Order: sequence, then C-alpha cells, then structure tokens
Amino acid sequence: MSAEQAAALIQNGDHVGMSGFTSSGYPKAVPPALARQIEAANAGGETFRIGVWTGASTAPELDGALAKVGGIELRLPYQSDPTCRARINAGDMEYIDIHLSHVAQFVWFGFLGKLNVALVEVAGVLEDGRLIAASSLGNNKTWLDLADKVILEVNSAHPLGLAGMHDIYYGTALPPHRRPIPVLHPSSRIGDAYLHVDPAKVVAIVETNEPDRNPTFTAPDQASERIAEHILDFIDHEVARGRLPRELLPIQSGVGNTANAVLSGLDKGPYKGLTAYTEVLQDGMLEMLKSGTLGFASSTALSLSDEGMREFLGNLDFYRERILLRPQEISNHPEVIRRLGVISMNGMIEADIYGNVNSTHLMGTRIMNGIGGSGDFARNAYLSIFMTASTAKNGAISCIVPMASHVDHTEHDVQVVVTEQGLADLRGLAPRQRAKVIIERCAHPSYRAALADYQERAQALARSGRAGLHTPHLLREALAWHERYEANGNMLPG
Amino acid sequence: MSAEQAAALIQNGDHVGMSGFTSSGYPKAVPPALARQIEAANAGGETFRIGVWTGASTAPELDGALAKVGGIELRLPYQSDPTCRARINAGDMEYIDIHLSHVAQFVWFGFLGKLNVALVEVAGVLEDGRLIAASSLGNNKTWLDLADKVILEVNSAHPLGLAGMHDIYYGTALPPHRRPIPVLHPSSRIGDAYLHVDPAKVVAIVETNEPDRNPTFTAPDQASERIAEHILDFIDHEVARGRLPRELLPIQSGVGNTANAVLSGLDKGPYKGLTAYTEVLQDGMLEMLKSGTLGFASSTALSLSDEGMREFLGNLDFYRERILLRPQEISNHPEVIRRLGVISMNGMIEADIYGNVNSTHLMGTRIMNGIGGSGDFARNAYLSIFMTASTAKNGAISCIVPMASHVDHTEHDVQVVVTEQGLADLRGLAPRQRAKVIIERCAHPSYRAALADYQERAQALARSGRAGLHTPHLLREALAWHERYEANGNMLPG
Repeated sequence: MSAEQAAALIQNGDHVGMSGFTSSGYPKAVPPALARQIEAANAGGETFRIGVWTGASTAPELDGALAKVGGIELRLPYQSDPTCRARINAGDMEYIDIHLSHVAQFVWFGFLGKLNVALVEVAGVLEDGRLIAASSLGNNKTWLDLADKVILEVNSAHPLGLAGMHDIYYGTALPPHRRPIPVLHPSSRIGDAYLHVDPAKVVAIVETNEPDRNPTFTAPDQASERIAEHILDFIDHEVARGRLPRELLPIQSGVGNTANAVLSGLDKGPYKGLTAYTEVLQDGMLEMLKSGTLGFASSTALSLSDEGMREFLGNLDFYRERILLRPQEISNHPEVIRRLGVISMNGMIEADIYGNVNSTHLMGTRIMNGIGGSGDFARNAYLSIFMTASTAKNGAISCIVPMASHVDHTEHDVQVVVTEQGLADLRGLAPRQRAKVIIERCAHPSYRAALADYQERAQALARSGRAGLHTPHLLREALAWHERYEANGNMLPG
Repeated sequence: MSAEQAAALIQNGDHVGMSGFTSSGYPKAVPPALARQIEAANAGGETFRIGVWTGASTAPELDGALAKVGGIELRLPYQSDPTCRARINAGDMEYIDIHLSHVAQFVWFGFLGKLNVALVEVAGVLEDGRLIAASSLGNNKTWLDLADKVILEVNSAHPLGLAGMHDIYYGTALPPHRRPIPVLHPSSRIGDAYLHVDPAKVVAIVETNEPDRNPTFTAPDQASERIAEHILDFIDHEVARGRLPRELLPIQSGVGNTANAVLSGLDKGPYKGLTAYTEVLQDGMLEMLKSGTLGFASSTALSLSDEGMREFLGNLDFYRERILLRPQEISNHPEVIRRLGVISMNGMIEADIYGNVNSTHLMGTRIMNGIGGSGDFARNAYLSIFMTASTAKNGAISCIVPMASHVDHTEHDVQVVVTEQGLADLRGLAPRQRAKVIIERCAHPSYRAALADYQERAQALARSGRAGLHTPHLLREALAWHERYEANGNMLPG
C-alpha cells in the first residue's frame, strides 16, 4: 500500500519500534507520511504524538521529520538529529538515553510498556515469508517479534546480495532460561540468515527505492591524525610488551573522523588479519578489509559513504565472506565483548582530570547524542580508550576539565585517555597519579597550568583537613569552567 | 615455619596478592608479623612498603596492621578499614578502586605489574598438594597461579568440612582463547572442589588456629525496615504484573543492615525456593536457606556472625548441599550476571535527582570503601536497585542531592532508588521525570522543598536559553549542598 495508507495505521500514543542504526536501514517513506498526518492533526487542534524506539540514530526523514512536527512524545535509545536534539533540550520531547545492549531486553522484560507497531525496512521478502534484512539490524528482530502490528518497507535500493551477510540469533530467552551466547570469534555464525515475522501481524507493505542517506567521508583533520598516531604508538608498545598478540584483539571503533583516522593508521601499519567486533562498519573498516589488514568484521550496521557503498556493492561476494551483521543485543552484548577481549575506542565530549568521561552532555545540561554502545564496550573491553581533541570551539572549551559536568563512564571504566596532545595510560594509577598524567599529556597547553593549579589548590585544601586527598576537588570551582563558558563563551577566566 | 620467618620472605616493593573477602578467609598471622618487620625497618630509617592486592575488604590484622605502620604503598581493589581509609584520604597511601570482576583479568593481562608473592589462607592441604580453600575464594586462584612465591596460612579454625563447598573454575583463558562460562543456574558446578598450587612455588606454610573476625549481626534499624518494606512491595508488584516469576530471579544483596532487613523481609514473605547469585553470604541468607525460602546460594565469601557461624558449622552437610563458593571473577562475572538476570540490591552514599549514584566518596573527595561488586551487578542485572536512608548524620546530610559529588553508577545503570521515605521506579523515565519521582518519593521531607526548588530554578534557567532542559542544573549550586556541609556541618542553607 502507499506510505500514507500505512502511516494511517499508526495511532496517537503508539509505541513504534523502527529500524535504523547510524543512518542505515531506517524506514524512508512511512515516517515522512506520518509526519504529514501529525501536522494535519495538529492543525486541526488534535494532539498526535508517538514513542519512537529505534536501534540507534536514523536520518532527517525519520527523526528530523517527526521531531519537526512535534510528533515524538518519547525517544529512545539514541539520537543524533539536530531537530530532535533541539526539541529535547527545549523540554518538548522526552529522551531516554540507554545502553544499546539493554534496549531489546528491557522491551522483552516489559519495562518500557507495550510495543504497538514495528516499522522495519528490509531488502526483500522471500516466498516463504522470511525477510532479507537491510543494511542494519539494530533491534529489528525484537520489534518484529513483539509488536502487535508490523509495517514493512521493502526498499529495492538495498541489494538482494545482502542476503547471507546477516546472522540473526534466535536463541535469546528471558531469565532464568538464558543460555550462553555461542560467539567465540567475530566470525562465529550463530543464527539465521533471515528475519522472521508472523505474516498475520503484517498490516502493511510499502515499496520504496531510496538509498540510505550515507554519511560523507571527510579526510581526518590534524587533531584526529595526531590522536591516531598516539593510539597506534600505544598499540605497538603493548604488542612489544607482550600485552597484545601480533594479530591484536577484535577492534571496536565508534563513528567519526578520529575513528576513521585510527583505522586508516592501522591500515598503513604492519598488522594483517585483524578482526573487528563493533556496532558500526564505516569506510575505514571497509578499506581495511579490502587491504587484508582486517580479516573479518562483525557489526550491526553498515554506514558507508557513497564511495564506500559503490566499493561494497561492486564486490559484494568478497565482503559477504568477511562481514556479519548481527542484532545489536549481540553486537553489543557484554558477555561476548568481555569474552573476545575487545579493544574499544570511543569518542567523548570531555574527560576530567581523574578520568571520568562525559559522552553525552554539553555543559552538563544539554544532550548531544547519547551514550550509544560506548558503555557496553568500555566496561567489558580488554582495553578501553576514550579520545577527543583537547579543545573545542576554537579553544574556548577545554575537553579536559576539573570535574566532568556529566558522567557516563566512571573512573572505574576508563583506561586510556587520548587527545592530539598525547596519551594518558591510566592502568594501575590511583586518582592523583591519573590527574598528573592526564593534565601533562592530554590537556591543551593553554589550559594545562589552570588544571594543574586547580589540582594543587584542591590538594592544599585537602591537606588542611577540609576535604579528602583521595580525589581532591574544590567543590566551589569544580564546575566553574562550564559556568564561565555558559556566561562568557570561554572556559578560561577573565 | 613461623609467621615471622614467612613474613621475612616478603621484600620492600613487592606486590602481594592476599586472600580475604569481607572479613573472611584473610591471612591472620603473616600480615601482623610483616607489620612488625616494617615498623622495625622504618625505625631503622629504611623504607618498606608493599602493594596489597586482595579479594575485597579484610580485617584489622591485615589492612589495619599494615596501614598503621605505613607499610602499604598501593592498595586495591577494595577496602573498608578505618586506618586504611584515613591513610588514603590523608594522601599517604595510593588506592585503586576497581570493579571486583576486573581484578583477576587485569593481573593476567599484565596491567598491574608483576605479582611477587601470594599470601593465601586455606583450611587444609591434601596429601597430593591440592588445597582446601577457606571461607572465601576472592582472587586466590589467580594469586596462586601467577605469583612467583606462595605463602600459605593453614588455619585449623576453618572446618575441613568446607571441602566440597568450593567451585573453582580453571577454564578461564586470555582472549582470544576464552570460552563461555558455563554457569546456567546459581547451583551450576563448573570447576574443581580444590585450589591448585605448584608445590615448587610454596616458600612457606604457616599454621594458625584463629576464626575469621566475624561481623556482628545487629538488628535492622527503622529506616532499614522501611526500605525493606518498600522493596518487598515492589517485588510483589512486579510478580503481580508478571514481570518477575513467582520464584523470582537470583538475588544479589550487598552487605549491611539494610540488606539483611530486605532478606529478613523476604524470609517472612510467601516466596519459597529462591536462589542467590551474590558475592557475600551473610546471616540473612543463611536463615533463608534454613527456612527454605532460599533453595541455593552462590557466593565468593561467607561472612557470618558468631551465631551464624555456629549454625553453619552445626549443619555443614545441610549447607554444603545449598551453597557454592566461587572465585570472584565468576561470582561477579558480567556474562553470568546478565544471563541469570539477577535482582541486584546495593547500598549507596547518595543519589542525585536524576538517578546518578555515588557509592564511594564522601563529599566528592574522601573515599569511604569502594565500588566493590556493585557495578558488576547493577549494569548487568535484571533489576538494579540502590538503597540508602534518606539522610545521614542526624539529618545534616541529605542522601538525595542536586548533583552527585562523585558518580559510580550512571543514570544509564540505575533503575530503582529506595529510601525509608519510598521507592522511585525509574524505568522508562526521562531525566526530568526521574527528578520528580526521586524528589517526591525518596527525599527526606526536610530537604524535599529545597530539591524541588533547585529543579524548578534549573528548569527556569534552561527555559531562558542559558542551559539545556534535558538534564537541568544550576552549575553554580549543583555542589553547594556538599560545600555547605564541609563549611557548616549541614547541607541545609542558613
């Protein structure tokens, strides 16, 4: 049927589980049609708002369109859309920022209420009703299993050759009936190649022919290149010390330029036959697969630039042997991540001098995107690395601060902090020792003295008996840098 | 040999892996002897300091004696000793506060340096050299496997009847060679009944006959009783809604009076044949095993009062059928905790209005004990519950604050907050919704208005465009409550 007819099957107040993970595999026709119906309802004085549950981020046609008309009551578990973000920070939309591995199980547990509708993009439908999944899996299996009604968008822009690249595990269960997830290697195939759906629940099939809105792949900037060099030096050092095997351990890499710079650096290095166990596969990993640096990659989404997509489509048989896409409850499963011993590399907004990391909030109050899978990976990784340029907004913001204005990754979960200035290896260090190396190695020179001064005065206060020396802080000044930025547009005093 | 002779085998600068977990199974003779040698060395102008790695907390004979003479350079991963705490907060001792599930693997990975000596208490030695473990396992397997030298304390106060109650998994490996941990139920036996040690490494055996310094089991106070009632009502409610089976799911319970009050409440309730998958088994669980409320308990330590120990020793055969003690890398393993779907209940120091939890720091700077296993459990639990009385220090401290002064458990990991005032179910709530229920249900009446006022003014600031409405805060006031307490001994203004 038409997207308009399908959208009309979604009711005010529905919880809708949509496909989509990092701009790939999201429904492209029904959300804009729904947005138009919501706009019309609003114009007629009617309230029409839904809950939007996805894999992770989507695209302007989904998050953007629905947020623009005020059609989202509650969004979870991750977003990165400018209109969504503005609505959330204006208090017009509720947003729950959830570890990506938690989402499917929370819905199965009944913690988030009833899932009314699944709206899932697929590449094709087999004659027996099984579905060829699209460029991301996210929570699609769970949405299809649990929703009362299913709307499918069959997008012929996805190659049917994606078939065989998915590994959809149907062995999950509710406790106390759970069994080990049998992934022993990133290439372990443990599930079905196709998604299943009860045909009786399918209330609409909408045909589309529109590619994913692929991210542009821009060349890494100088800071990203430097960060990548520091990480590569560190990895070489760990291999030399015998703390990493020569084939390393499975790599997880967040999205963005810095991540791509690290991957590109690895690709130029001496390593061959590496593996990846990650949640999103971008151009950098595709190139590594092509060159042989990477032997295999497990992910839940492909997020390729136009150029990357052309390379991928032109060599589908090659990549089908080297890529598996899994549901995000498996790509991000703590059990598997800890077993495999992943090298986890994620971006962040800021770290404090003790190594607490803020991945989500600007100046403590404004949501940026969300925690995504960074917690699933960092807590369970063999090595947990967090990276950022040392400053933002042309130097007006220091990304190393006295106290993080929001904490997503605690001191207990952060082993390595990297900026273009250098790398701080926090393993085996107590808080004051951490502060020393983070300030010396990671802070930008224009903030280093102020951070050292803060730390010294905090220690002096503690020595006077009015605070503790375990994690010295000046409570009055701990968030003053953020406060100054809000007031003056600059974290530096004066 | 004598404790003095054995202690003389420990050198300045050594890293010593000691047994001990919540006052049980810690070495009792060598640490005090070592403390005397350190004191003598210090008196002679010599520096003598070691690294002390354990399972978790120990007792005055170990942490207290060594800290008193300034003999600890670095302590990890957990402590609860007053002398240790004072030394750490005075800056005289380094302390690394580590998730208990991380410790063994970090040592295997080589992240904490070389382990020189293992100092492990056991209940007995078999003729073939295998060891009957004592009342806790902690990291003993790892210490015995990795240390250059092994000192054993054979404590005849431990009953040899403990034999058969241990389940020591020897199937761990370094990535990429790890396999699933095959625990499917708290009662799953997956390992050996005895500890192994290479006899060639054993440099000393010291005989002792001294019971663990057992905690006193005091009756729960009124606040603990009320917290327990709220949790029990909540569990009943979840069962009634079909979100928990009638036999519940495995229980994890932290230490202390509130935990014991909850267990005691469960014991009076309608539940039978429950299970526990926890890190410490206290009197409360022993009583539940006796009554049949609890059918089986898995732990890494027994921490019983004198009375509890008498009951246990008098009925060893009964309890041996119903208790397994495992290494803490298994009792606290994220893989197993997530698989089993544990109901996790842990104490805390404070929670903020958005549900971030501080488990470790007083007023943001002074360490109390440490994170222990709370992160292992909370992040991977089916239900993660944090509890505290709503105030401390006769009301001078509110345990619900505008912003946590240290974050150990993030908003992403905290589902339920409970005080004697009430229970806040945060599942499915966005930050401002969380703030409303936490303030209304959990805060003490004497702080409720001030918290609501903070939240309202933070929202007003955000509405003016100078902050975000996702997680509204007044950066200047966020930590003012803690600052006031440090200055005036009271969090309330004026």
